[in-house]
Amino acid sequence: MKATIITIGDEILIGQIVDTNSAWMGQQLNNVGVSVYEIITINDDRVHILSAFAKAEQQSDLVLITGGLGPTKDDVTKSTICEYFDDELVLNQTVLEHIENIFSKYVKDAILPANRDQALVPSKARILHNDYGTAPGLWMEKNDTIFVSMPGVPFEMKGIMTSGVLPEIIKKGNLPFIHHRTMITAGVGESTIAKRIEAWENALPETIKLAYLPSSGMVRLRLSSIGMDRVEVETSVAAQVKALYDLIGDIIVGESNGESLVHTVFNLLKEKRKTIATAESCTGGKIANLITEIPGASTVFKGSTITYATQSKIDILGIEGKLIDENSVVSAEVATAMAAQARVKFKSDIAIATTGNAGPSKGDSDAEVGTVYIGIADENGAEACKFLMGNNRERVVQKTVNKSLELLQKILIKK
Amino acid sequence: MKATIITIGDEILIGQIVDTNSAWMGQQLNNVGVSVYEIITINDDRVHILSAFAKAEQQSDLVLITGGLGPTKDDVTKSTICEYFDDELVLNQTVLEHIENIFSKYVKDAILPANRDQALVPSKARILHNDYGTAPGLWMEKNDTIFVSMPGVPFEMKGIMTSGVLPEIIKKGNLPFIHHRTMITAGVGESTIAKRIEAWENALPETIKLAYLPSSGMVRLRLSSIGMDRVEVETSVAAQVKALYDLIGDIIVGESNGESLVHTVFNLLKEKRKTIATAESCTGGKIANLITEIPGASTVFKGSTITYATQSKIDILGIEGKLIDENSVVSAEVATAMAAQARVKFKSDIAIATTGNAGPSKGDSDAEVGTVYIGIADENGAEACKFLMGNNRERVVQKTVNKSLELLQKILIKK
Repeated sequence: MKATIITIGDEILIGQIVDTNSAWMGQQLNNVGVSVYEIITINDDRVHILSAFAKAEQQSDLVLITGGLGPTKDDVTKSTICEYFDDELVLNQTVLEHIENIFSKYVKDAILPANRDQALVPSKARILHNDYGTAPGLWMEKNDTIFVSMPGVPFEMKGIMTSGVLPEIIKKGNLPFIHHRTMITAGVGESTIAKRIEAWENALPETIKLAYLPSSGMVRLRLSSIGMDRVEVETSVAAQVKALYDLIGDIIVGESNGESLVHTVFNLLKEKRKTIATAESCTGGKIANLITEIPGASTVFKGSTITYATQSKIDILGIEGKLIDENSVVSAEVATAMAAQARVKFKSDIAIATTGNAGPSKGDSDAEVGTVYIGIADENGAEACKFLMGNNRERVVQKTVNKSLELLQKILIKK
Repeated sequence: MKATIITIGDEILIGQIVDTNSAWMGQQLNNVGVSVYEIITINDDRVHILSAFAKAEQQSDLVLITGGLGPTKDDVTKSTICEYFDDELVLNQTVLEHIENIFSKYVKDAILPANRDQALVPSKARILHNDYGTAPGLWMEKNDTIFVSMPGVPFEMKGIMTSGVLPEIIKKGNLPFIHHRTMITAGVGESTIAKRIEAWENALPETIKLAYLPSSGMVRLRLSSIGMDRVEVETSVAAQVKALYDLIGDIIVGESNGESLVHTVFNLLKEKRKTIATAESCTGGKIANLITEIPGASTVFKGSTITYATQSKIDILGIEGKLIDENSVVSAEVATAMAAQARVKFKSDIAIATTGNAGPSKGDSDAEVGTVYIGIADENGAEACKFLMGNNRERVVQKTVNKSLELLQKILIKK
């Protein structure tokens, strides 16, 4: 089954928001055996929507549409759907009751005709209940292609996908198993890896696809395969993964099964029953933020200090002023002390600390832009390493976050 | 001038990464008067790329392509560009020297033929220098449509856009002025606002477009206009903004000129010469993280504590255990104390604190999922407000971040 995702609304086109919905949908569809053929973002223009629908119908079995279902007149999606399906809007009593219920329970404004109008739905549509909002999902079919229209608000879309769309797609049956395994390598460039695995890559069976995914300081190697027999697909990919470890096991720092490194670290913390704290300077809380985005984070995450100002490293973490004066605030000594102090203050098993200069200008230290120290503390003591992360602020921060997670993963695997 | 953005590579289609490049490009293009007509993400499949190119050429004057320019064999973009332009690859000496220079300076791996091959470029292409990587940008033209191909790594793409693409587009001249103004409203739903501004909205001139942009707990109203005369466009939009303030000034909490609320807060902090600290629990550092993403954050941001565990509120912030026992960790008293203590500990002018239960399960308190207290402290003292943010973890956190920034903005405007 092939899918096209259509996002309607100019908020993404003018760059006011980033499209996070499509990636989430892509992930979920892959999990149930649906491949995403194309993602397209268009303006809420009638003609453009109609042509996108026609193209999507032609190239795919499933079309997921988000956006443009609000109660106000700037939303044209519903009327354009009616036009495309040669349909008309009718009042749906269940949706109306749901809207009235939401208003009586959660909304202090009076219910208005525009709100009630959200219960007007195309007569040919099957309604998908929206747990978190007033606009329902709409399921329609045309020439063997399924069209599903959902609101663009992420948690509303996710609710409808999870309860209404994915189970129905699974029920259709006969879906293949899509399998990805991603090995994370560090310290070596893309082309050097390619050279080391050249013979293996050339001999890869046609059913397995290899992708090189470089990001700040790391290259991920993803093996993807698709097939009707889950065991067969998994076994054939596993054999290639093993061959890959034999070839470049020295540079593979971990594996993320479709998950990001922070999930790997989170799972290791849970599995090893360890808690963590962070003491962040140049990363500005990004490590803590990534961890706390995971539901259940409180079982492993004790807390964090973001000590941007030098004085706050003294006041909050209890770093000695003398240590900073003698070594500079961007130094191995300070990174070590930050990690050690965070571990004590938060009573965690492990603590990780970052101090560096991300640029654009030099801050409270004389360190060159891009100089970063990462400190790590556990029951065996504390230590720090120095890294030169280049001269681009965004990259320095991202590389430092990646490297920190990589160090955490390494230390956790051994516990 | 109309643009199409094409992103090549299945990382986005399978949901392994979120496409942040397109939003950034959309913003930058708008700033120089180019409208984005469509964003499309496709697999690195030759046939699919060719058909996307043909469609983009037909519908737009500028086609920006990212992705698929790495040194390894999984990248097909360059050969497909040659096919589309009926061109062949030739060695570019300047690019080769740049690659060799990067390797000798920054890369410890030996330079390989695959790296040198990145200096092979289509003969018809004008080369756009890549400050941060080895793959150059490629500028080609066909039937009055400009095609620019760039690497997908965000900071490399941004470098090429900033130094090589945008200045050239501006030089072409005759570009219109695209103008957006966004009013942020809080506390009232989309349809209630629509009702209050109905007559005004119906009388809006055709040159001005209104969009309703609901997000967690807020509705943004964006007025957009485009025209050749900058002053005229700005004046006509300003008149409508004034009318809007007259109608619903009571619910407008601020304005973001194409910028997000955090930028507004950052600019206010700078303008008023105030510093800030955050003491975050349920928001997990998200407020601090947003602020520190802004270059120059260190001038206004002192630091933050993320005290996820109850005990860490005592150990790090110095909240009295008795206060927590008597009032619960999710309470106005604790939020107030967290803000007050953060202000003292970080020696900041203002501090903001969050404590709440984002779910999915109850944490260290008996508070219902969705209960959040936000505390704020300044030289006049500290106080806290209670909010009920619903039962969806992602939404609770997002709403709390938005509400915190809104409170900060309100307090800063008065200073």
